[in-house]
Amino acid sequence: MNVYDILRRSAKLSPEAAAVSCGRHKYNYEEFQERVLRLAGCLHEKGASKGDRVAVLMMNCHRYLEFYYATARLGALIVPINTRLSEGELTYILNDSESSLLAVDRHMLPILESIRADVKTVNSFIYADEDGTPEGMIDYEDALADAGPFDGEVSVEREDPAGLFYTSGTTGGPKGVILTHMNCVTNTYHVLITFGYREGDVYMHACPMFHLADGPMSHPITMVGGKHTFLPSFDPKAAMEIIENEKVSVTLFIPTMINFLINHPDFDKHDLSSLRLINYGGSPMPVELMRKAMEKIGPLFRQSYGLTETAPLLTSLPPSEHVLEGPEHRVRRLASCGREVAGVEVRVVNDEGENVKPDEVGEIICRGPNIMKGYWRKPEETAAVLRGEWFHTGDMATVDEEGFLFIVDRKKDMIITGGENVFSTEVENALYKHPAILEAAVVGVPDEKWGEAIKAVVVLREGHSATEQEIIDYCREQITHYKCPRSVDFHPDDQLPKSGSGKILKAQLREKYWGGQGRRVH
Amino acid sequence: MNVYDILRRSAKLSPEAAAVSCGRHKYNYEEFQERVLRLAGCLHEKGASKGDRVAVLMMNCHRYLEFYYATARLGALIVPINTRLSEGELTYILNDSESSLLAVDRHMLPILESIRADVKTVNSFIYADEDGTPEGMIDYEDALADAGPFDGEVSVEREDPAGLFYTSGTTGGPKGVILTHMNCVTNTYHVLITFGYREGDVYMHACPMFHLADGPMSHPITMVGGKHTFLPSFDPKAAMEIIENEKVSVTLFIPTMINFLINHPDFDKHDLSSLRLINYGGSPMPVELMRKAMEKIGPLFRQSYGLTETAPLLTSLPPSEHVLEGPEHRVRRLASCGREVAGVEVRVVNDEGENVKPDEVGEIICRGPNIMKGYWRKPEETAAVLRGEWFHTGDMATVDEEGFLFIVDRKKDMIITGGENVFSTEVENALYKHPAILEAAVVGVPDEKWGEAIKAVVVLREGHSATEQEIIDYCREQITHYKCPRSVDFHPDDQLPKSGSGKILKAQLREKYWGGQGRRVH
Repeated sequence: MNVYDILRRSAKLSPEAAAVSCGRHKYNYEEFQERVLRLAGCLHEKGASKGDRVAVLMMNCHRYLEFYYATARLGALIVPINTRLSEGELTYILNDSESSLLAVDRHMLPILESIRADVKTVNSFIYADEDGTPEGMIDYEDALADAGPFDGEVSVEREDPAGLFYTSGTTGGPKGVILTHMNCVTNTYHVLITFGYREGDVYMHACPMFHLADGPMSHPITMVGGKHTFLPSFDPKAAMEIIENEKVSVTLFIPTMINFLINHPDFDKHDLSSLRLINYGGSPMPVELMRKAMEKIGPLFRQSYGLTETAPLLTSLPPSEHVLEGPEHRVRRLASCGREVAGVEVRVVNDEGENVKPDEVGEIICRGPNIMKGYWRKPEETAAVLRGEWFHTGDMATVDEEGFLFIVDRKKDMIITGGENVFSTEVENALYKHPAILEAAVVGVPDEKWGEAIKAVVVLREGHSATEQEIIDYCREQITHYKCPRSVDFHPDDQLPKSGSGKILKAQLREKYWGGQGRRVH
Repeated sequence: MNVYDILRRSAKLSPEAAAVSCGRHKYNYEEFQERVLRLAGCLHEKGASKGDRVAVLMMNCHRYLEFYYATARLGALIVPINTRLSEGELTYILNDSESSLLAVDRHMLPILESIRADVKTVNSFIYADEDGTPEGMIDYEDALADAGPFDGEVSVEREDPAGLFYTSGTTGGPKGVILTHMNCVTNTYHVLITFGYREGDVYMHACPMFHLADGPMSHPITMVGGKHTFLPSFDPKAAMEIIENEKVSVTLFIPTMINFLINHPDFDKHDLSSLRLINYGGSPMPVELMRKAMEKIGPLFRQSYGLTETAPLLTSLPPSEHVLEGPEHRVRRLASCGREVAGVEVRVVNDEGENVKPDEVGEIICRGPNIMKGYWRKPEETAAVLRGEWFHTGDMATVDEEGFLFIVDRKKDMIITGGENVFSTEVENALYKHPAILEAAVVGVPDEKWGEAIKAVVVLREGHSATEQEIIDYCREQITHYKCPRSVDFHPDDQLPKSGSGKILKAQLREKYWGGQGRRVH
């Protein structure tokens, strides 16, 4: 059972069922499989064989999905790349993965132009878009028309890698996460058992397809013979139109997308009643937003938590646990990312590796057939997180008596001051309530007396002002004294430094204060 | 992920949910896990470690389920034995498996007594029943009370064997099918995705727990935290009482059980409305029986097909395909065992290994993570059926254009006469319609002219009579001339010879006619 087998079965059993609908392109499963096999034939012709890397740098569309299955058919590795990365990061990933083929769409042509000279191993560039193929690139649709459907005998086993998924790299350079066919197929099982996708479901690719939250998370839709629809990149109006026109039943959003959607002026003009399940994850969902979303869309929300390294699903909080009113311990679960899904074991442990007591903070570790094989060509980094069969997530959490997890912080962002653990997120939550603060990050800085001291780095809103003392005092009204910043820096730029996927680069902020000191506390 | 992990998770997430209800014994998941770990402690104390075999010869009860999970916790192999086997077969299995422990209940004491001297490797006998433990045997409940919960560190990986499941042995001696933890866990996924068991489901163990149709097929209930209830052995009245009292929602029957149930005089006295899904399999379901069952119980029926060697699920026919009236090609599907389930690839191939055309007969072959590791200590028999990754079932079938399978016969029961393939089941179906015939089996016998000739062996109903020529003529009215028996033998006993699980031993019948001829055609 490999990733291609998921499509193979649906094409065999439901050849006439709608597989993809992407703009004017609509294919049933038989046609979609034919296109996938033709793409595999084309890739093979261009030299891609088992074990080779095929990089994809594109917005969401049906052709992206075709790359997922065509590479799987060949036993080649897909390398889906974040479209928002810098030139340096893109070049690094293409060279690090030694990709021999690269597919781009029209949005990526400018950046391709600027990195092309530095990309060393790519020997064919594929233009996977509508007309307008630049000279020197392979036209996707022409190549499919020319290529015969691939019918070679390739043994693609469950332990074989299916792809390299680069993590956004908030620490160090990007790392290529090797996910095997078993990782992706068992995640597909876990999703089907947990989410209950079924025949007839229509899924909308709303999150980027390079991300684990969407790409491999959409294989379950293929497994049930459901229909894929595509949002090239997130836009609330376009999302509502697709939901209405395609009768979308399931999708996955990040919280800010939900916020955009329900606050859109045209929200009431669209019929979204086909929706029966909305997954969300990636960042905490404010209770007020959740309440409003449930009022406007219905009790359809499921929160899930996972990582690239875990292919990705680890925990999930079903709609029935989204309780807005009632006993405190039920309402509190809105802040939980749920409980371990069937097939995965998740624990929260202290530094000795023992399960923490309820409400003590520890690190989330997990094991299961969905855990990555390792980082591409980084044995030390792999050994640091994969100890025995347990993957160490680096996420700090508490777990209640019923097994619900509450994530508190990334381990490396935790600050130890005067022997006390302080979670940067708690301090940041206090800072973000200040009306003058646009962005805030909290890091530990060296301190002779306390080991580390808490430093807030903030960007103020245009036209607002606040002093260091005012901000510290504001925090003291909300949280315990020792958790409050001892100093506040006002960042010179109009925003904090961020990674390609929008995460604040705390490592870079810390660097300024730790420069010259060899060892970080964490 | 191993078989024990399935229980571990439910005990962690749903400690207070009902796990088993067996007569007066009722345990929630926390209590049930505690008992399982104590049993593991006891088995370990008696010498069972990873890789050792623990045989179980019992009727259905919660203790049987405890053996499934306790052996998995230790990495030991459960050897569930058919309770209806002969003394010789039992002795063979215990010695062949080199089981070191054997658990029996009160029903099995007499047969244990008669084989005990011939059983060579068993060093401890466990009496897993209510009071009345015979001298020299370990009392199950005392042992659980004495043993500490097992907390040893044992690495039980997915490729490790979980058990030996002996096939009923209609040809040659019984063969021990080695099923790994991966086989059983992936079958659990396949069942959950296909059947849609869910939290709150109540399952009744109606088929024998030594059989793949029940034992490992009940792990999905544990995975969703559902409740197990038990019918010690099939009895229609007791089944209806349990369904009513325990609010059973899902179960698995063989067709004759359904027949007994709906024809029971007390059928209308029981409230069976809690049922939402009835699986059936193991033998063809006559259309008239299906119609009556759907009228009396509702459209709740799902047919499934699988083998011990495939852990077991391969194909399934959902309730929506149980159409009693309408277009011929829809109604015809009542005779189909359905289509391949997600996770398994099933093909019907000719002797050259090519897919047959619609309505041509071929052999069912399959691959997937649920396929057995092999037969215990029988490399030749393993090699004969496991070719590459494809398992050859020995079942002959047709497949229609939409992928629905129709089983026609066991390969070895097919007869080639004058170059034509004749499926014994088709001839037997014609014979069974004769009012005087109680039992019938059709085999090929040596024939100078035709290679093989068709021989019917029949048992007449008491008080009825029929001549050879009358029976042959009766068949000619129904089926093509060359498919009709050329001769009929009247079996001297009041029934045909059968295996422990009730299958007619055609090999034994054939023996009489082929004795002295070295080679069988098949």
